[in-house]
Amino acid sequence: MLGARRLLGALRFCSSVPCPKPRTSAKLRVREALGVLDASGERVTVQGWIRSVRSQKEVLFLHVNDGSSLESLQVVADSSLDSRELGFGSSVEVQGQLVKSQAKKQNVELKAEKIEVIGNCETKVFPIKYKERHPLEFLRQYPHLRCRTNALGSILRVRSEATAAIHSYFKDNGFVHIHTPVITSNDCEGAGELFQVEPSSKIKVPEENFFNVPAFLTVSGQLHLEVMAGAFTQVFTFGPTFRAENSQSRRHLAEFYMVEAEISFLESLQDLMQVMEDLFKAATVMVLSNCSEDVELCHKFVAPGHRDRLEHMLKNNFLIISYTEAVEILNQASQNFTFTPKWGVDLQTEHEKYLVKHCGDIPVFVINYPLALKPFYMRENEDDPQQTVAAVDLLVPGIGELYGGSLREERYHILEQRLARSGLTEAYQWYLDLRRFGSVPHGGFGMGFERYLQCVLGVNNIKDVIPFPRFTHSCVL
Amino acid sequence: MLGARRLLGALRFCSSVPCPKPRTSAKLRVREALGVLDASGERVTVQGWIRSVRSQKEVLFLHVNDGSSLESLQVVADSSLDSRELGFGSSVEVQGQLVKSQAKKQNVELKAEKIEVIGNCETKVFPIKYKERHPLEFLRQYPHLRCRTNALGSILRVRSEATAAIHSYFKDNGFVHIHTPVITSNDCEGAGELFQVEPSSKIKVPEENFFNVPAFLTVSGQLHLEVMAGAFTQVFTFGPTFRAENSQSRRHLAEFYMVEAEISFLESLQDLMQVMEDLFKAATVMVLSNCSEDVELCHKFVAPGHRDRLEHMLKNNFLIISYTEAVEILNQASQNFTFTPKWGVDLQTEHEKYLVKHCGDIPVFVINYPLALKPFYMRENEDDPQQTVAAVDLLVPGIGELYGGSLREERYHILEQRLARSGLTEAYQWYLDLRRFGSVPHGGFGMGFERYLQCVLGVNNIKDVIPFPRFTHSCVL
Repeated sequence: MLGARRLLGALRFCSSVPCPKPRTSAKLRVREALGVLDASGERVTVQGWIRSVRSQKEVLFLHVNDGSSLESLQVVADSSLDSRELGFGSSVEVQGQLVKSQAKKQNVELKAEKIEVIGNCETKVFPIKYKERHPLEFLRQYPHLRCRTNALGSILRVRSEATAAIHSYFKDNGFVHIHTPVITSNDCEGAGELFQVEPSSKIKVPEENFFNVPAFLTVSGQLHLEVMAGAFTQVFTFGPTFRAENSQSRRHLAEFYMVEAEISFLESLQDLMQVMEDLFKAATVMVLSNCSEDVELCHKFVAPGHRDRLEHMLKNNFLIISYTEAVEILNQASQNFTFTPKWGVDLQTEHEKYLVKHCGDIPVFVINYPLALKPFYMRENEDDPQQTVAAVDLLVPGIGELYGGSLREERYHILEQRLARSGLTEAYQWYLDLRRFGSVPHGGFGMGFERYLQCVLGVNNIKDVIPFPRFTHSCVL
Repeated sequence: MLGARRLLGALRFCSSVPCPKPRTSAKLRVREALGVLDASGERVTVQGWIRSVRSQKEVLFLHVNDGSSLESLQVVADSSLDSRELGFGSSVEVQGQLVKSQAKKQNVELKAEKIEVIGNCETKVFPIKYKERHPLEFLRQYPHLRCRTNALGSILRVRSEATAAIHSYFKDNGFVHIHTPVITSNDCEGAGELFQVEPSSKIKVPEENFFNVPAFLTVSGQLHLEVMAGAFTQVFTFGPTFRAENSQSRRHLAEFYMVEAEISFLESLQDLMQVMEDLFKAATVMVLSNCSEDVELCHKFVAPGHRDRLEHMLKNNFLIISYTEAVEILNQASQNFTFTPKWGVDLQTEHEKYLVKHCGDIPVFVINYPLALKPFYMRENEDDPQQTVAAVDLLVPGIGELYGGSLREERYHILEQRLARSGLTEAYQWYLDLRRFGSVPHGGFGMGFERYLQCVLGVNNIKDVIPFPRFTHSCVL
């Protein structure tokens, strides 16, 4: 241990030597400028893009935004300044004095001494128009420019903050982060249609693969996480997953992000659900506290009324019902369903919607699904005459399934039998190994990250919460 | 803003209601148990895998590890306990009292009252053997089990910590995190051989793509980050990138991770290099301080002597030479190279090695490469008669290229000409748009994450610093 400490010592010594700083002291981000409490004429430089220009008799008001916050910095300049180039969308550098603002809306403003236009904006052909609130559908046509609007700016800042919050949650709770592979030779999980991967320049000979075996884009990092949970006890991954499904729905993408965790020495669904609920609430609290303005924008303009819905989810304990109870509830419903609910058959979107409504718009865990509906790795409930597995889905208002999880079958012989029945024994010998060498009861879950963002922000279409959406017939940029 | 605050208020109220905790108070991770300073008989439960068993006259010593730290917890039990099942690799739950240890090596030990074997380990066929230090090459055959060894355990904990450190660095410095897409229709960057993506079940008709256009796995998120830097000023991504190259080298993988950043309003390579050096040093300091034991293990057993090498890198300022100077240095070298160094030709691995050695084993930035060697987006140096671009590579001892970066061409007309010369104008209209609407000088870089880990830990082969390596002829699990 001394060695690493010595290294640190050496570095601390080195850092007393004048070190290059990434930014000169006078240059401020807009967020930093807005945060100055007692502005008293400090000379600063701010760079950003013009969001509005307003000319009065003797003064010119600009709003400059650099994406560090939703709010722009008000710049006040002498109207004698040539304002022809100071158009909406142009990039500028403003030097001046930071002073207390007269206006109620902001604490500080920048009294400009010099404004330099860095890059003009051809506003006539710029698809984003001054003072217009463009619908999200319209903006989707411009994946390279839509991030410059308030709405997408806020959504993507929230996405960044939520990413950090999720990483923090797991780190603080002793989980080791694992990069599970994107390219995988596992194709038998049945989680959905797969994308296959091949070198593009290769003359395609089916017998000869780049990897010697057919390779696919991952649909889940679960099996790889199980490997790691056998060494680190608590592990998580947060990466891209893929489905080659022909779907244009508002809840599906061909490429989306999943947060997955796996926990060893975990013996009950109850314990698993506690982590799931805790993660949801802890991450959301962090996002609300670090991005309040951005969340507020969505709750005000994108999804009016969603604030109360989210508050309702956060302040109530999530509910738990069994699959069997769910089917009973559906059978007793006065509503007519397109698909008649029946024990042994998968729940449909319409069923999920009804169940959440029935539960008073509180997120609800549905547990213990029929064994026949679920993949080989889910743990069989030993005392259930109905042949169920310890699986759990979390249904949330407006979205449906947000999480899926289960206890995993840790008993060698039971797992071996189930693999044999599916003809998978050979392919999953390595997975059986995990049960031969110090097996432990364990379980895990996956949460769709885009659906999580939809749920927090109330954004209706999943394509608006990811920077560059990929779906059938669309892979722009 | 009030709305989000109200939500937080509601939640704070809710958290005063008894909330389910993920773990009972008596259950401790090994790391937590080892951290107890004044153990005085607290009753605790610890779960993990047996790393060693030693039987003395009246007592039995076990070492139990749960992956939360390199160090195991010593368990002391009465020798009357049936030890037949307490074999290496078995999983156990131990209940007992945490007491001060007599031994010098550890502060605390667990006086067992009850030991329950959870899962046996068939030691005879378990490829990891008790008390043996297996070479990393040997362990590579068992990607599902190697994480249970000290070496891989330490490496992967460091990887997790380094991931967190890099995220923190960017967050603390005001960068917005962006998930750049994995599947992309950009294929013209020339950064290397591409993987193509197609639905696996599709009857292959070349004219009809799932995405309507040919789709590939990304080789870099740079262009997408440039989109985002035009809104958020400072952005980063940290995700998988791909090369379909037929390479089995110790420095290449088909799937690897890149840390990429893009910064608007950045006008000089000097500023860019400061961020690159700062990131390297800040992340490394964080790793050394949070994972000292794990780093130490590598510096002791995997790469003896590497500690001094790393210290040397950390306490010196990185050097800067131009490509032209680099070629001169190589031409004056007494060494004979397989490839004769020549202005206008790419540097080879042997050249990089020589340059780093020449620079006293301090990382060295090589800047201003010939325009003809570099892609269209790199910024032309206006005052250089030799036609160079503002590109930078960072060469580090033992690895070679760790970072690549450049200023990007922000001038519309110059970029337009370069695209036209390459016949790419049509495909990159969106990229030109970024220069039409409020263009700014900007630059960015990418750092190979596995190479970074190799550099910090001294691990020779890149396949040993990633959980599941993918390379030509190999995609196991």
